[in-house]
Amino acid sequence: MSAFVLERRRAGQSVGLVPTMGYLHDGHMSLVKKSMIENDVTVVSLFVNPIQFCPGEDLERYPRDEEKDLSLLAAAGVDVLFAPGVEDMYLPGHSVYVDETALSLPLCGGSRPGHFRGVCTVVLKLFNIVRPDRAYFGMKDYQQLQVLRRMVRDLNVPVDIRPCPLIREDDGLALSSRNAYLSEEERRSALALSRSLAKAKEAFEKGERSASVLRDLVCSVLSEEEALEPEYVEVRDAYELSEVESICDPVVIALAVRVGRTRLIDNIVLGE
Amino acid sequence: MSAFVLERRRAGQSVGLVPTMGYLHDGHMSLVKKSMIENDVTVVSLFVNPIQFCPGEDLERYPRDEEKDLSLLAAAGVDVLFAPGVEDMYLPGHSVYVDETALSLPLCGGSRPGHFRGVCTVVLKLFNIVRPDRAYFGMKDYQQLQVLRRMVRDLNVPVDIRPCPLIREDDGLALSSRNAYLSEEERRSALALSRSLAKAKEAFEKGERSASVLRDLVCSVLSEEEALEPEYVEVRDAYELSEVESICDPVVIALAVRVGRTRLIDNIVLGE
Repeated sequence: MSAFVLERRRAGQSVGLVPTMGYLHDGHMSLVKKSMIENDVTVVSLFVNPIQFCPGEDLERYPRDEEKDLSLLAAAGVDVLFAPGVEDMYLPGHSVYVDETALSLPLCGGSRPGHFRGVCTVVLKLFNIVRPDRAYFGMKDYQQLQVLRRMVRDLNVPVDIRPCPLIREDDGLALSSRNAYLSEEERRSALALSRSLAKAKEAFEKGERSASVLRDLVCSVLSEEEALEPEYVEVRDAYELSEVESICDPVVIALAVRVGRTRLIDNIVLGE
Repeated sequence: MSAFVLERRRAGQSVGLVPTMGYLHDGHMSLVKKSMIENDVTVVSLFVNPIQFCPGEDLERYPRDEEKDLSLLAAAGVDVLFAPGVEDMYLPGHSVYVDETALSLPLCGGSRPGHFRGVCTVVLKLFNIVRPDRAYFGMKDYQQLQVLRRMVRDLNVPVDIRPCPLIREDDGLALSSRNAYLSEEERRSALALSRSLAKAKEAFEKGERSASVLRDLVCSVLSEEEALEPEYVEVRDAYELSEVESICDPVVIALAVRVGRTRLIDNIVLGE
């Protein structure tokens, strides 16, 4: 992988990396398309990273379909699929991790201890193997995006992090590989996530600037669906992820909800 | 710094990095010489890294003489001295660190919590800024060398770590910037460090393979000097730094000793 990219780079070509855990959907493919526009060579990595799953999470049942992923990427004209094995990525005695100690603490960091350590570590490894000029991340994983931006800043990683818009189904459901877990009924309930955020956006656009009012709006929409168990609903500074009371600067409203055995996240950025 | 190196690399030149905290001595200069032999361009970084000092350590009084360092490096023909400010290296809200979680725990890790986190973090930053082909570290900081080797392995850092022999004064004292702290009397007492290791080496060469016998030998030589307060004396696997009872594979005998307010370390590798 490194040798291939090195050769391309020596030929003056730019390299884009799209890190994924596979089971690709239109969200992933929007990252791929953006990378292909902005770079001479696009590498898509496919690696279900065990160390970003916490004990009791869905590592074993995480959906996989490498054949379909391959054909999607081939059809899109992607140059390289990089799909290392777990044993290639984590050698015996692996003992080095990258820890972000501020932005990774709230939101998903609260219920998924070790998750962002796993994300930062694997992304830095992929960056070091592929050495891309640019790397593409969806805003669906909003906290991940900010944590990785901080990692790149604080460790002087010479990669340009390119955020890409969250992609939704026509009915509003944010695209996620984990949507495959949902029953038809659960999927219907899950539409409340995007609906609740849309309602907050509407209120914001009408001039509401109180974080707690917007939060309550989101929560009340979610509570209409009995099948949903909210894990968190928070209004935070869009970059620092710090708590906000009255909205002056851009904020993100981020939420995590359980629907049956499935955990879903969604978010919206306001005021940007 | 990055732009300069990028230009050289594009011209097909190789780059060596010698990370230092300044107050250069012949130990540092041996690293510089090796880098100049092996690379087209040699960068020496000079940065007293605050985050690798623990509370109560000697950060404030760490010896500095940038003028002398400059003239030594100029005389040696070094291409670049890279001396960033603390505020350039650690931006407000710095929150990302590299943690080695195995090799960094024993030996100096026990009495210097956070030290190796600070070392790994700054070295990875320097690697990302300078992007050297090779980086040079002395075996004086033996545990640091092994921790950094592990970092490079586990994070796929594309830098070749080049270990360089520990350099001693004629009387055996391992070169260290911290030797500047020693009074004449303390310096005389400190000769017991290398003397004790030499005695262990002699016993090993005569066939002694018991780690505890070698350790006791070292301790007994150190105890002859009242001014010395040993912090640890340990016989460990030379690469994994794991505890060893009977010596089959290469080992390191590593020790840390306090002499007055000064903390000194020394080591010897046996069986390599």
